[in-house]
Amino acid sequence: MNDRSEPEAAYRPADLTGFATALLTHAGMPADRAACVAERLVEADLLGHTTHGLALCAGYLGEIASGAMAASGEPTVVADYGATAVWDGNRLSGLWLTAKAVDTAAEWARVHGIGSITIRNSHHIGCLAVFLEQAARSGLMVLLASSDPAVRAVAPYGGTTALFTPNPLAVGIPTGGDPILIDVSASITTMGLADRLRKEGKRFPAAWAMDAAGEATDDPAVLIAEPKGTLLPVGGVDHGHKGYALALIIEVLTQALSGFGRADAPTGWGASVWVQVIDPAKFGGLDAFTRQSAFMVESCHANPPRPGGAAVRLPGEQGLARKRAALQEGVRLYPTILPALTSWAERYGVAMPVAIGGAGRA
Amino acid sequence: MNDRSEPEAAYRPADLTGFATALLTHAGMPADRAACVAERLVEADLLGHTTHGLALCAGYLGEIASGAMAASGEPTVVADYGATAVWDGNRLSGLWLTAKAVDTAAEWARVHGIGSITIRNSHHIGCLAVFLEQAARSGLMVLLASSDPAVRAVAPYGGTTALFTPNPLAVGIPTGGDPILIDVSASITTMGLADRLRKEGKRFPAAWAMDAAGEATDDPAVLIAEPKGTLLPVGGVDHGHKGYALALIIEVLTQALSGFGRADAPTGWGASVWVQVIDPAKFGGLDAFTRQSAFMVESCHANPPRPGGAAVRLPGEQGLARKRAALQEGVRLYPTILPALTSWAERYGVAMPVAIGGAGRA
Repeated sequence: MNDRSEPEAAYRPADLTGFATALLTHAGMPADRAACVAERLVEADLLGHTTHGLALCAGYLGEIASGAMAASGEPTVVADYGATAVWDGNRLSGLWLTAKAVDTAAEWARVHGIGSITIRNSHHIGCLAVFLEQAARSGLMVLLASSDPAVRAVAPYGGTTALFTPNPLAVGIPTGGDPILIDVSASITTMGLADRLRKEGKRFPAAWAMDAAGEATDDPAVLIAEPKGTLLPVGGVDHGHKGYALALIIEVLTQALSGFGRADAPTGWGASVWVQVIDPAKFGGLDAFTRQSAFMVESCHANPPRPGGAAVRLPGEQGLARKRAALQEGVRLYPTILPALTSWAERYGVAMPVAIGGAGRA
Repeated sequence: MNDRSEPEAAYRPADLTGFATALLTHAGMPADRAACVAERLVEADLLGHTTHGLALCAGYLGEIASGAMAASGEPTVVADYGATAVWDGNRLSGLWLTAKAVDTAAEWARVHGIGSITIRNSHHIGCLAVFLEQAARSGLMVLLASSDPAVRAVAPYGGTTALFTPNPLAVGIPTGGDPILIDVSASITTMGLADRLRKEGKRFPAAWAMDAAGEATDDPAVLIAEPKGTLLPVGGVDHGHKGYALALIIEVLTQALSGFGRADAPTGWGASVWVQVIDPAKFGGLDAFTRQSAFMVESCHANPPRPGGAAVRLPGEQGLARKRAALQEGVRLYPTILPALTSWAERYGVAMPVAIGGAGRA
């Protein structure tokens, strides 16, 4: 992002976590909850999900200040049947709620083989990938999906008007070594990337969107034009019925199963979440599981790449490599992230984090 | 498929089911099991899955005759924890095993909210879509996936050598009205369609395959060339990391969770199956569920189509319409299907089905 004469500033992850924790605590969040949220925001940056890490923090602080995100309180248990439950998130932080739901579902999975919780009326959940690694390293398979029933960005295949959110699906898979960490959406790209490219006057690498007249385009500006265009589902114009199907599955798991969704015309920045944890020990056994998943990892690595292409990677591999490097060398934040937090730091009297080795950007 | 002077022959579904039941019974399958398999093969034809209906019957009869499919016997329960289980299918009919697993998981879901069974060492399971409708109409959400650990057709994204099968995922969703019936694979297209097009000298509608050198192509012949090409994952060359991720999820759910898969280098025509049934009544309630899913159906139907395009459909809608028509007017089988069964009918002394209204093709 910079030329070589001015290297991008790097920050210690712990400094960034402390900074975000302080901001969220000053905003009214209990300290342990603020730390939970801050750690997961920074974790997204560590893994390279630069649109879904600290980039979200200013937005969250604004939502707390306006009352749109509840800083404290507990979710309401709408239903609880031992291995399955529905929580009303009461517009609490989605990062905190999801972390809590993964932990709870993991306990249930250890008993029943599967634990599943759907959360309605949550605030935004950030980056699904950050909820996978710890559970996967402890031998559990984690499946997460989310949607925002108040937002529409993707049309059903064959249609032209937005109906779905991008609807991410994330899956953490134990392998005995580094876990496989999948985080894909049912649309080709995300709103976050579309916004960033549009603001920078850039285009998508291919026709990942559609204008309101139904023409595929690489121009992210169609998403804010009037009438609005849409993000194309996975598969695009050619085979977008596949992404459409995925979007429907995720809408149903997150909204229908939690009993609250688009039919209720909710407003505001929120999320509906589906959490499922599977314990391989209650199926064919963890060793038998990782024997297969590790074989899959080896087979992918051994696969001859396309001419001129990079070696075949597993999902999550690049993110974990980035994280290892960042833990050593510091996190190189996307340049717009810290400046967006300066006014909040001033407001709450929190010192901005200091870059390591060289002048900080902020 | 025919010109208008010679309309395609139509058959009563019950006649086709009776015919296939008789063939499978003569081959050695218990009568009730033969009927279960025959009904599901014909159901696939009713829904329009013409490569995965009666088109499979001759292959199955050959496998029974050679001993590669066990005609009778029971699956072995490898593990059973109340809501989750692993069965060894002992190379019994995958259609029968899957039907039995869906029924069993449905019983468990009524108690625990979720029931999940993985089956290893099953014979081929046919068309996943046929296992959804009945359970979905009874208010249950059904999720199914399968892979064949002995077959490789799809490369990991960025690679050039086949590693995965197309790996279908099927989901049945209650709506109060017709259920949503999703059946998509993690590759853009299937082996069945590729074989059929190749034999007919036809091409894919777009670059759905890749040759062994890593070039995308619309030529299905690359799949049997030496060295072999591959089917492209969903998303193709542009964003095939999404289909790759789906393929991995399905490999893991079907093989790692059942404790048997590619690491064991199995041979023969088989399947690994993942079955999960969810009871919405043990989450937010069935009425709350269908309120959302029915709203989704209405919203998709109301979505303005692309210029010149058809109205937006829900997955399964066209199949259910085909089925309704076929139940009234008979099933119009793909022309190659019955001729492939003539020699089996002669061998077992079973009369070929008679077309309704006009000369039969067979």
